[in-house]
Amino acid sequence: MQKLNALRQWMIENGFSGVLVPTADEYQGEYVAPESKRLQWITGFSGSAGEALILPKKAFLFVDGRYTLQAQKETDPCEFTVIQTPAARVQNNILTGLPENSVIGYDPWLHSPDEIQHLREICSPFKIKIMPLPCNPIDKLWTDKPETKTNPVVFLPETYTGMDSAIKLENITESLKINQDDALVLCSPESISWLLNVRGQDIPYIPVVQSFAVLYKNGTLDWFVNPAKITDRLRTRLNPNVNIKSPDLLAATLDALSIQKAQVQLDTHSSSAWIYERLSQGGARIHIKEDPCLMPKACKNKTEQNGAINAHIRDGVALCRFLCWFDANASSGELTEMDAVHKIAQLRAENDLYCGESFSTIAASGQNAAYIHYHTDEKNNARIKNNAMFLIDTGAQYLDGTTDITRTICVGIVSDLEKKRYTQVLKGHIALASAVFCQGTTGSQLDLLARQFLWKDGVDYAHGTGHGIGSYLSVHEGPQRIARSCSKIPLMPGMLISNEPGYYKPGAFGIRLENVVMVKPVALPKDAEIKVFGLSTLGLAPFDKRLIDFTALTPVEKTWLNNYHEQVYSTISPLVDKQTACWLKTACVVL
Amino acid sequence: MQKLNALRQWMIENGFSGVLVPTADEYQGEYVAPESKRLQWITGFSGSAGEALILPKKAFLFVDGRYTLQAQKETDPCEFTVIQTPAARVQNNILTGLPENSVIGYDPWLHSPDEIQHLREICSPFKIKIMPLPCNPIDKLWTDKPETKTNPVVFLPETYTGMDSAIKLENITESLKINQDDALVLCSPESISWLLNVRGQDIPYIPVVQSFAVLYKNGTLDWFVNPAKITDRLRTRLNPNVNIKSPDLLAATLDALSIQKAQVQLDTHSSSAWIYERLSQGGARIHIKEDPCLMPKACKNKTEQNGAINAHIRDGVALCRFLCWFDANASSGELTEMDAVHKIAQLRAENDLYCGESFSTIAASGQNAAYIHYHTDEKNNARIKNNAMFLIDTGAQYLDGTTDITRTICVGIVSDLEKKRYTQVLKGHIALASAVFCQGTTGSQLDLLARQFLWKDGVDYAHGTGHGIGSYLSVHEGPQRIARSCSKIPLMPGMLISNEPGYYKPGAFGIRLENVVMVKPVALPKDAEIKVFGLSTLGLAPFDKRLIDFTALTPVEKTWLNNYHEQVYSTISPLVDKQTACWLKTACVVL
Repeated sequence: MQKLNALRQWMIENGFSGVLVPTADEYQGEYVAPESKRLQWITGFSGSAGEALILPKKAFLFVDGRYTLQAQKETDPCEFTVIQTPAARVQNNILTGLPENSVIGYDPWLHSPDEIQHLREICSPFKIKIMPLPCNPIDKLWTDKPETKTNPVVFLPETYTGMDSAIKLENITESLKINQDDALVLCSPESISWLLNVRGQDIPYIPVVQSFAVLYKNGTLDWFVNPAKITDRLRTRLNPNVNIKSPDLLAATLDALSIQKAQVQLDTHSSSAWIYERLSQGGARIHIKEDPCLMPKACKNKTEQNGAINAHIRDGVALCRFLCWFDANASSGELTEMDAVHKIAQLRAENDLYCGESFSTIAASGQNAAYIHYHTDEKNNARIKNNAMFLIDTGAQYLDGTTDITRTICVGIVSDLEKKRYTQVLKGHIALASAVFCQGTTGSQLDLLARQFLWKDGVDYAHGTGHGIGSYLSVHEGPQRIARSCSKIPLMPGMLISNEPGYYKPGAFGIRLENVVMVKPVALPKDAEIKVFGLSTLGLAPFDKRLIDFTALTPVEKTWLNNYHEQVYSTISPLVDKQTACWLKTACVVL
Repeated sequence: MQKLNALRQWMIENGFSGVLVPTADEYQGEYVAPESKRLQWITGFSGSAGEALILPKKAFLFVDGRYTLQAQKETDPCEFTVIQTPAARVQNNILTGLPENSVIGYDPWLHSPDEIQHLREICSPFKIKIMPLPCNPIDKLWTDKPETKTNPVVFLPETYTGMDSAIKLENITESLKINQDDALVLCSPESISWLLNVRGQDIPYIPVVQSFAVLYKNGTLDWFVNPAKITDRLRTRLNPNVNIKSPDLLAATLDALSIQKAQVQLDTHSSSAWIYERLSQGGARIHIKEDPCLMPKACKNKTEQNGAINAHIRDGVALCRFLCWFDANASSGELTEMDAVHKIAQLRAENDLYCGESFSTIAASGQNAAYIHYHTDEKNNARIKNNAMFLIDTGAQYLDGTTDITRTICVGIVSDLEKKRYTQVLKGHIALASAVFCQGTTGSQLDLLARQFLWKDGVDYAHGTGHGIGSYLSVHEGPQRIARSCSKIPLMPGMLISNEPGYYKPGAFGIRLENVVMVKPVALPKDAEIKVFGLSTLGLAPFDKRLIDFTALTPVEKTWLNNYHEQVYSTISPLVDKQTACWLKTACVVL
């Protein structure tokens, strides 16, 4: 209560009746550095998405369905009321209790302009004001905040990126000219890291360089990045059109654009409200437009495609070794979920080009797997149960690619219902993996393929079917996705996307089967009239045949499975120890 | 050139450098009465969608891909340049030739506010002004215009509508109250006809009453309809809350709402710009919202569902009799496409409750079927070829329901490619007909099911897969549809929609296989966790087995086809003559 009281005292002194605390940092990304975990500091909640609203007498924590249980566990119910909302954002029904003319404060660095706009809209009927905070009060009160890291930025050579940064800069500058924009303000560390062919160690899992950039129509770029992270070696590798500037100079640069009444391109989804307000209030003409790096970053070039293939082979080696080890030891009752987490990390660390995990491994035994985003750690560890399924969702960063894979494994004897659902999920996975679709098709058109067999039995899974994946970048990367909701982004050759249907029965079990797939053109018969694309599966590890009801598979599905297992065996077996190769032979045997 | 010259003279006298002439009438519908065919009068083009822009020295006719050939055929190339655009609307590239400050005039009754808004946006960069015309110049020049019909409006009893108009009015009034709207202006004749349980004979094919209505929050409704169409008998049947007013009084009614600063609900997609401008310029607060009749009209009640089923049985009787007759006579080389058009109309006319065709029958032999919207008439008639496929797309209006069905029939011997494509289209039709999908699923999620087999061969069809259908109303009814483009309208139980994949090879052949289907809840196993829906096929006529490559069908597809043919046979055979029953037995024999 001490922290909340201190914040409320600050609110009284500064004339605010409410303060918003989101998970986001200044870069609106999925992962944040320890010193930016303001929401966790004030609430205790450690999930990746949420927002608190601190009022004089009450405090609310808004989370989405993935995090409801975790939020309730991690927060003090006397302090915070946890509310589940689809977007993990403030909901209008709690605003009814506030008096008119109440002022809610937000840190404009930690919200996008779109979010603030939405907030204004829901607050307006209640006559509640939304005002930027003069400074972030948590930063004042959090005296033992971890220091910001200054790990050096590294240059990622063309061997991995496949394209000189000069060409990327030229292409993006060209799109500025076409749009008659004077400058582009880039706020996404992923886009900047892609554009400049640099990687950093600022936040866990994602090797982005946290920074901002302004690209001018003459092709020069101001890169606002902590100079302590820039080595002399990096300076020699960077494109000469890139000027390194201290982040302190960003405000002055935006003001200069404003004074010139420049037309400035900005993506109001990934930028902060601070940048938007600085520019708009200063008099710049803001051209709201999707970040122009998104599509070229999503459509991997040949080098990145090959990198992704090779990274998945290396990752498949680690995963197959893991599965062999797990099969030999799991039924003993001695293993814990954290043993599995450590084992896969240790096996991956033996791989060339390995740089770390791409997200915190989910290792969940039995009913724990029913939590879609289950988190295990040393404090919160469970034994791996016999006669239950075990789910592992894990990924890695390699210099040549990012991986993400999920397998659900049989330990001992499991129920017929578990096998039935596993088979339905697998049939959906195969249907999506085998999809052939016309140019222009979006992920929302394909989503049904993965769900159709579950729907026929009146069940479903409460998450998307696939997310985009970066090239030694974020494991969750837009703009493409495979989900029920409308998408206007066509799936284009070279895009990487996950194929991960699942099924979750609370209190019982959870299943997810995930491979990364790559969009590729499909060879066509002579009389073809349109371009069609398909998906090439990159993830390499067997599906657990002990969980498959083979009578429910069609001949076409069996052929897909046999071909896939044949590919896994022929690719991985020459690269592993004898014991794993022997295990793999059985796991991949043709039906 | 005489008409164009006269119009240009009018333009000079009235200070316009351009005049827009669309196909639409005051009701923005698909079909218009003969006296409203202004576009056809000035251009010669008789298609259902298009727009002309008459300039001092040039004139353009914009049509979509369906109508390019027809427009070129029907217009004089010295007078009109035909331009194909996706939306059949003025394109900005032709505006480059116009001097700044040119004024283009539009008749505000013939365009929706959304269209005018779009037009302003494309004209703004060229500094071209868009102004309402003081009157419609075509109406001045068209001296031999047909007279407006005043056929009487009839009341459709609850036997067919299933719901008293009083309840419909109550429900819609309730939604006004929830939205805090003072009034609702209804501009869609379909919505008004549905709401008041009335039908008319104002335009071909669609039994709507062309009229406007204003519903007030107190539950009363002003119906602006030509009093000449209203019989004393109808007056006694109408809800007492409905006040019949002359259309002349609409302006004064809108002005009264404006003076009161009323909050008025309006659908700017189906209303005319005239109504929007009258209200907004007068000072009313316009609440732009989708027409509240759309969803309840689309989700048919039990009576309407049964009506649709029965209408399709009667229609199936006519179609099976047609198919039997056609099979006996087609290969003679004596029949024409118009013979087929007359035959099906004549057979349908023998049915109970028959009120006419629901659209102009498409009867196309051989390569004519490659035109998706092929039109045949006495002047433009072709013989039915032997050794070619024949396509018939036809529908009817019955008091209890509207029908729409397409079959493609083998005449003589056809090529393997024709059979291959027919089978792929049929597989798509079966996949969609068998779909099971979770509550909330939209047509854009299902569309791929119908296209997947064609896509695998690198071919596609350039139209949607399904349109909604009215209940003794329009054969094309929103808001639901099955198409590639994003839709936010979930498919709900009771909705009627067509299932009509196709394939068209220009210069060679065309295939389309269409049945109307109804969305229905699916019986679920005990352990089901979500609501799922499926489609019940209403159309009843055999698919031509001579065109099916049975080796390409899966066992599940064969079972669907056998069950469907069994249903067609058992439903239709007791209702037809011996010869048709005998033909049907062979056509429906189990494989």
